[in-house]
Amino acid sequence: MKKLIILASLLIVNTYGAASSTDISWRKLDPKHTILMTLPHGKVVIELAPQFSPNHVTQFETLATEKFYQNTTFYRVIDGFVAQAGPKDDSEKDKSVAKLNVEDQWATTKNFSFTAVQNNDLYAEQTGFKDGFAIALSSKEQKAWLTHCPGTLAMARENGKNTATSHFYFPIGQAPRYLDRLMTVFGRVVYGMEHIQSIKRTATIEGEFAVDSTEHTKIVDMQLMSDVPKAQQIIIEVEDTGSENFIQRLSNTRSRDNDFFYNKPPPVLDACQIAIRSRIIKKIIE
Amino acid sequence: MKKLIILASLLIVNTYGAASSTDISWRKLDPKHTILMTLPHGKVVIELAPQFSPNHVTQFETLATEKFYQNTTFYRVIDGFVAQAGPKDDSEKDKSVAKLNVEDQWATTKNFSFTAVQNNDLYAEQTGFKDGFAIALSSKEQKAWLTHCPGTLAMARENGKNTATSHFYFPIGQAPRYLDRLMTVFGRVVYGMEHIQSIKRTATIEGEFAVDSTEHTKIVDMQLMSDVPKAQQIIIEVEDTGSENFIQRLSNTRSRDNDFFYNKPPPVLDACQIAIRSRIIKKIIE
Repeated sequence: MKKLIILASLLIVNTYGAASSTDISWRKLDPKHTILMTLPHGKVVIELAPQFSPNHVTQFETLATEKFYQNTTFYRVIDGFVAQAGPKDDSEKDKSVAKLNVEDQWATTKNFSFTAVQNNDLYAEQTGFKDGFAIALSSKEQKAWLTHCPGTLAMARENGKNTATSHFYFPIGQAPRYLDRLMTVFGRVVYGMEHIQSIKRTATIEGEFAVDSTEHTKIVDMQLMSDVPKAQQIIIEVEDTGSENFIQRLSNTRSRDNDFFYNKPPPVLDACQIAIRSRIIKKIIE
Repeated sequence: MKKLIILASLLIVNTYGAASSTDISWRKLDPKHTILMTLPHGKVVIELAPQFSPNHVTQFETLATEKFYQNTTFYRVIDGFVAQAGPKDDSEKDKSVAKLNVEDQWATTKNFSFTAVQNNDLYAEQTGFKDGFAIALSSKEQKAWLTHCPGTLAMARENGKNTATSHFYFPIGQAPRYLDRLMTVFGRVVYGMEHIQSIKRTATIEGEFAVDSTEHTKIVDMQLMSDVPKAQQIIIEVEDTGSENFIQRLSNTRSRDNDFFYNKPPPVLDACQIAIRSRIIKKIIE
């Protein structure tokens, strides 16, 4: 039996000392640049970033449209690090895909606008958000880049700079920010991150038997949301990180102005620790 | 059928650009201060920290020994934030447990030794490791504290400073470091973090149905490892973070001296992003 969920009630999840607010500005996702990935244990929705990594997004969308990823596996899943998927190494399928030039940063113009989060973060001169994505910036170099956070989608590569093809990964532990400006980030999970975190680990620790490849988590299906029949689409909206409401939320979060805080933590924010909210407008549960 | 695994082969998981090394110094866990938590989907091993948070550890161990946590649930599981468990709020069981004074930091003496990781981390003057735990320090205040990372175990509390009793949580997303010096961290997951990350989320996002409490993940069992029959014990060793080998690994990791890095990332380390290795000496798989 199918159940149709239409947005009805407003549920705000309060976190330790986080200012609860019902004032959220929402942004629609473009179904042409949204991915529905079906895993055996759940569905995951991914927002792509054609405005930052156009060639990687185009290639990924083409592969998704061609059903390239169907039945490929998460063959490299390391606890605390990444879940990585793709075709069998050096198979015909693997070698059939063109290599991409890295899109690991872009030149910023003087009028580049974004929502500032933090100066002198451990890894960068500045961090912020642009179109829902965590970014980092160097004013000296006039560069900006999408930064690795839990749940970002990036393309794997070999040692060579311009060697990415179809293999991709999601960080599943603490943000591996040292990979910034070295890998092309081109999307982020906006729904179903718990299913990414539940992907079967393939790397064993010393003393355990190797995980058999038959146990690796399979990608049942990967499609552009716009190609999914309307009745099966999951329609998501995400918090608008350019909105005044979001800027206000960052400010509230930074001040931790709440009885819970008997000591005030440093008034700093880790961009990867800021949850960008999603809401479901329509979903079918089968 | 049961299978006994005895440490045999050496498998080192290489990560993007991480220097692989077979030189690891191992430390045994004390089974009297190690917890075996059984979830419906897997077993989790937790190292406790009586040297840093003695009263919280004693209370937790007493409760575990009394089977207090058996059939309690993870009732507050927020994606990207924490998985929190405990008895039903305001139940007789809940109210039966004494309140604890917070153990959120300690005074350091001049000869306090630890393995340094990073100066001027976003949240603290210094970070490091002590006995396998990520710590942060202020030389000005002569204080140190266990810092929140993914997989650390901490006691939940109400708004009042000294109100923790039995409810506990594990961060499952980016480290919520702003909770440092505000909550008592008293342990860390050393095996089975993937099972913590797979705990059923209880907080729904806007537009989804609330998760029924019957679906919340149950704690099947929680015991001191020393109380587990010998044949069922999982014996773990962990990387000795005070060893020269570990200090060398930190140094190698910081320099990223590897062809993979066509640009050198900043020579900094996020203590929560350093995986402290575990190995299994003995485990029964049922």
